[in-house]
Amino acid sequence: MVNVGVIGAGLMGSTHARLLTSAVAGAEVVAISDAVQDSAATVAEEVGAGTIHADALELIADPAVHAVVIASPVATHEPFALACIEAGKPVLCEKPLATSAAAAKRIVDAEVAVARRYLTVGFMRRYDPGYADLKTRLDAGAIGAPLLVHCAHRNPSVHEFFDSRMIITDTAVHEVDITRWLLGEEIVRATVLTPAPSGRARQGLRDPQLILFETEHGRIVDVEAFVSAGYAYDIRCEIVGEDGTLELLPPATVSERRDFTESLPLPRGFQQRFGAAYVNELQAWVASIQLGEEPSGPSAWDGYAAAAVCEAAVASLESGRPVDVDL
Amino acid sequence: MVNVGVIGAGLMGSTHARLLTSAVAGAEVVAISDAVQDSAATVAEEVGAGTIHADALELIADPAVHAVVIASPVATHEPFALACIEAGKPVLCEKPLATSAAAAKRIVDAEVAVARRYLTVGFMRRYDPGYADLKTRLDAGAIGAPLLVHCAHRNPSVHEFFDSRMIITDTAVHEVDITRWLLGEEIVRATVLTPAPSGRARQGLRDPQLILFETEHGRIVDVEAFVSAGYAYDIRCEIVGEDGTLELLPPATVSERRDFTESLPLPRGFQQRFGAAYVNELQAWVASIQLGEEPSGPSAWDGYAAAAVCEAAVASLESGRPVDVDL
Amino acid sequence: MVNVGVIGAGLMGSTHARLLTSAVAGAEVVAISDAVQDSAATVAEEVGAGTIHADALELIADPAVHAVVIASPVATHEPFALACIEAGKPVLCEKPLATSAAAAKRIVDAEVAVARRYLTVGFMRRYDPGYADLKTRLDAGAIGAPLLVHCAHRNPSVHEFFDSRMIITDTAVHEVDITRWLLGEEIVRATVLTPAPSGRARQGLRDPQLILFETEHGRIVDVEAFVSAGYAYDIRCEIVGEDGTLELLPPATVSERRDFTESLPLPRGFQQRFGAAYVNELQAWVASIQLGEEPSGPSAWDGYAAAAVCEAAVASLESGRPVDVDL
Amino acid sequence: MVNVGVIGAGLMGSTHARLLTSAVAGAEVVAISDAVQDSAATVAEEVGAGTIHADALELIADPAVHAVVIASPVATHEPFALACIEAGKPVLCEKPLATSAAAAKRIVDAEVAVARRYLTVGFMRRYDPGYADLKTRLDAGAIGAPLLVHCAHRNPSVHEFFDSRMIITDTAVHEVDITRWLLGEEIVRATVLTPAPSGRARQGLRDPQLILFETEHGRIVDVEAFVSAGYAYDIRCEIVGEDGTLELLPPATVSERRDFTESLPLPRGFQQRFGAAYVNELQAWVASIQLGEEPSGPSAWDGYAAAAVCEAAVASLESGRPVDVDL
Repeated sequence: MVNVGVIGAGLMGSTHARLLTSAVAGAEVVAISDAVQDSAATVAEEVGAGTIHADALELIADPAVHAVVIASPVATHEPFALACIEAGKPVLCEKPLATSAAAAKRIVDAEVAVARRYLTVGFMRRYDPGYADLKTRLDAGAIGAPLLVHCAHRNPSVHEFFDSRMIITDTAVHEVDITRWLLGEEIVRATVLTPAPSGRARQGLRDPQLILFETEHGRIVDVEAFVSAGYAYDIRCEIVGEDGTLELLPPATVSERRDFTESLPLPRGFQQRFGAAYVNELQAWVASIQLGEEPSGPSAWDGYAAAAVCEAAVASLESGRPVDVDL
Repeated sequence: MVNVGVIGAGLMGSTHARLLTSAVAGAEVVAISDAVQDSAATVAEEVGAGTIHADALELIADPAVHAVVIASPVATHEPFALACIEAGKPVLCEKPLATSAAAAKRIVDAEVAVARRYLTVGFMRRYDPGYADLKTRLDAGAIGAPLLVHCAHRNPSVHEFFDSRMIITDTAVHEVDITRWLLGEEIVRATVLTPAPSGRARQGLRDPQLILFETEHGRIVDVEAFVSAGYAYDIRCEIVGEDGTLELLPPATVSERRDFTESLPLPRGFQQRFGAAYVNELQAWVASIQLGEEPSGPSAWDGYAAAAVCEAAVASLESGRPVDVDL
Repeated sequence: MVNVGVIGAGLMGSTHARLLTSAVAGAEVVAISDAVQDSAATVAEEVGAGTIHADALELIADPAVHAVVIASPVATHEPFALACIEAGKPVLCEKPLATSAAAAKRIVDAEVAVARRYLTVGFMRRYDPGYADLKTRLDAGAIGAPLLVHCAHRNPSVHEFFDSRMIITDTAVHEVDITRWLLGEEIVRATVLTPAPSGRARQGLRDPQLILFETEHGRIVDVEAFVSAGYAYDIRCEIVGEDGTLELLPPATVSERRDFTESLPLPRGFQQRFGAAYVNELQAWVASIQLGEEPSGPSAWDGYAAAAVCEAAVASLESGRPVDVDL
Repeated sequence: MVNVGVIGAGLMGSTHARLLTSAVAGAEVVAISDAVQDSAATVAEEVGAGTIHADALELIADPAVHAVVIASPVATHEPFALACIEAGKPVLCEKPLATSAAAAKRIVDAEVAVARRYLTVGFMRRYDPGYADLKTRLDAGAIGAPLLVHCAHRNPSVHEFFDSRMIITDTAVHEVDITRWLLGEEIVRATVLTPAPSGRARQGLRDPQLILFETEHGRIVDVEAFVSAGYAYDIRCEIVGEDGTLELLPPATVSERRDFTESLPLPRGFQQRFGAAYVNELQAWVASIQLGEEPSGPSAWDGYAAAAVCEAAVASLESGRPVDVDL
């Protein structure tokens, strides 16, 4: 049984704690930490965690805690991740890995210094059955060498505080990671185009954005990132190769025919669309810990690379010109 | 933690033991029993079960065992299920519940005698996300009152020993349960039609069969049961209602375009098609035990009703005429 | 230029006249006949036909008329068809060919007597691109020998005068012809089952019906015929063969995503669903006349066989038992 | 009956002549002209055209010719189109309208001078049922104001002589016209990006290209133009609006299930994909001539605007930078 400590009792932290308790084999949540004591207590009671640590660093140091989930605000990721690496404890850190590429790089360096991987970044899409099938078939040569990837990331709406840069750092960051992973190469340049914004977008928000990435071997990835899309949480991905294409399908299970229309339901949010991915991510993480293996999921380097690409894209958003990634 | 004992270490038993260990929260497999000691030992080692019982009745009596999975040959289901009920232990029994409707009825009667549900029958389709969505939308009135259900149950191939009656009792039995559940009413008559058999069918096998069921309120269910279908494990279900239709979609996640063709993969077998259903079934079963609740899945009555419908269908297969269900 | 005379200026007659004028190469509508003079005059003016014949037999005899379309009430089909054959003029006769199998047989006999095909029956589905593709692929061996055909024929609603027998003779008759054509063999037995009728069906109407046909080589065709389906004009056809299946797709061209739903439009009526089929049917008919060839479309025999199968099905509807086709 | 003269007896000219004769009502091909006399003679015989003009200008002047189709090499379009306008004869001119925007502008000016439209440019996609449905639903407000259009234009392969600029002027030119038409506004800027070319592309060919267009109201259109795609002739178009999306579906009619795969056929070439569009285009053109109406299809201005956009895109291909359209 892997005893897990969860740092952060907000939406993501409580989701992880709940899934570890109700849907993942081999794990037990034994400790919770949150700056807001009440939140920590509520989640701890729900999942039966016996210990509440006021200080997250104490949770990390707690000998009863074998492994740590970091789901606290992004500014805290760096110190907590470094503490986990120092303590030699497996850690699953929510994305983004850190507030800047430089901060993420320090985490990479810390692992390099101890010559062992402890950290996994929570890019859960790699565990989605659809993306996993894309990867398997692409790697099996189903469509030959990839040339282009067309992506769309559409949210029905976002919170008030969401600004134009977050459309890159919080939304398109998922496409950064998943296309790096699918293509198996680094992104070296980013260009952001901004069409006339949707009437649904909050005043001043550059939404949608059309973000273009070039990779080291000359592939192009285009990402429509659109957080005021209104109609659904819709994630699209088509890989164009030398011999054909592979495309993610929407995850519908039932077709309905009525009112002169055949219809399929579309997801309402990421929890619905990627529910299975979160469970698979946690199950794979727990299994690797049980086996004493290094984690195989997204690494600190992946978190760092994603941060560097997003910094280039944000610079392009501001300058209107292509910007090279500084990796 | 629910301590589970598994009776039967064959395909289904080992699958359940493995899933309980690697994909279900809150359960531990503590004991295994199988007529073949070596099989029991192999599975026990794989899942870390500490005890092997040569006699399944000892496993049921073992105080360290809180709950039992029965996946032994069907002839043993009745005595083992009765022993579990007598011992007051939750039991998940693979389908079919018993060798005859009469035997299944004795299990129903045993539960009635103790006035509490202990038994769940392994009709796992009710836990498939697709069938669950069909049920949810039908019950929400999406298509009005149901009038007809069109089903197809196609296996690529079956073992040598499969005979024409097993196409009903082992294959179409799933459609019997799922349509009873979807429609919320009993099947009262069965008619089996046999077209010219496929050249792929073993000599003498009446395959495919077109099986017609009538329900107590006059709905008609038609089931194409075809176990030498060759091309895939393909499960279809369309409900026709007064206002529209609902139809199960094949569970593809990726579309591939190459060689002048757009293609979607089809499942190769029931493990692939209903993998998530087995996990969901076990997780729901374990959760109900943890909560001390009576199980909410398919009951002994459902197992009995399915057996009675299958007996009528087998009689129709033999006589060529409609046969009333004796329930 | 083929000079066509059209008998009948109702819905089907005017449709044919209009298509011959506006969408078919090589034809000109030169004469119209209808029991209602005003209707004839209206259509004649619209399509620029110079002659109106009060008597359809005069139209047939008119030397300026090279070929005839019969779209008058079914009771008149036999005498008009016989007159065309006698006059040696190509004739396209709307379905059903005649009021009874016996009447249809007299038309077959008339052609046999002159040892030449003049008549084409308006089973336009054979000219639908979808059904034509089904036939091409089946005949090319894509799925091996056919074993079963599953059909659904659903109309949103029908006129007041529609009775339970017309669900066979006017609706399912299309499936009779198309499955005979697809399978290339005769239907020898019919059984009609009637589930509880839809609440949308007029009082007393047995709607839907589940009609089962057996062919001379033991194939089974099941047809759900449902004329109060409400939701759309929906035509389904799946052929199950020894190596796979072929299925007709609904004819959508655009997918719409909005309101958390992906949707495809479904046809509202036969004109929309089979618009291209009518044009193709007329174009093939005109082309064969221009080339002086015998027609290759549905023959008088096809019209007769369909009538005989429908008579058996109507008898089964009344008796509740399987009825052999008297062919 | 509209008497049509066809200039050019190559692939497109013979296709138009054949369709006018065998699939379009109300037209007759009476004259053919081609620089290669034998080609003209072959087509003339096939379609029954009585006259062969060695000189295309004679064909245009021929009083027996009511309307002209220009399908000769692009360098000849300008003089022939100007001659038709001068002669006051309706003319359908294949795309591209002329060899340069300047040349196309002279045709626009000629029509302005006579204050009447005679010319239609052969952008046949506007007559494709799918694109027509996109336009109808977009204009009906189904998805609110459009924001982005994602297009792909993929050919299995192209002839030896195809160069990188023709991927814009001969291939993507269709997307230029169709997106101008769909959005109802002009394109004002073009940017061409070139990923690593496909191994299937001829040495030196920049293929695929990712072409970006900005419109006067700030919409962005991205077009993947890929003429060595190998796998199919695949045309994709998704419009993203403020309330949802509209997407063109591939034109399949039958689904096949075999070998553990569900598959739909994809088109092999433009003739197959846009066969109905060509017929509809010609039928609409002939009908407008019969009615004495000005043509409603793509105008000389549309041909000119497309040429100007393509010139900007070619300049961007060469410079690697965004280029403004000079309209």
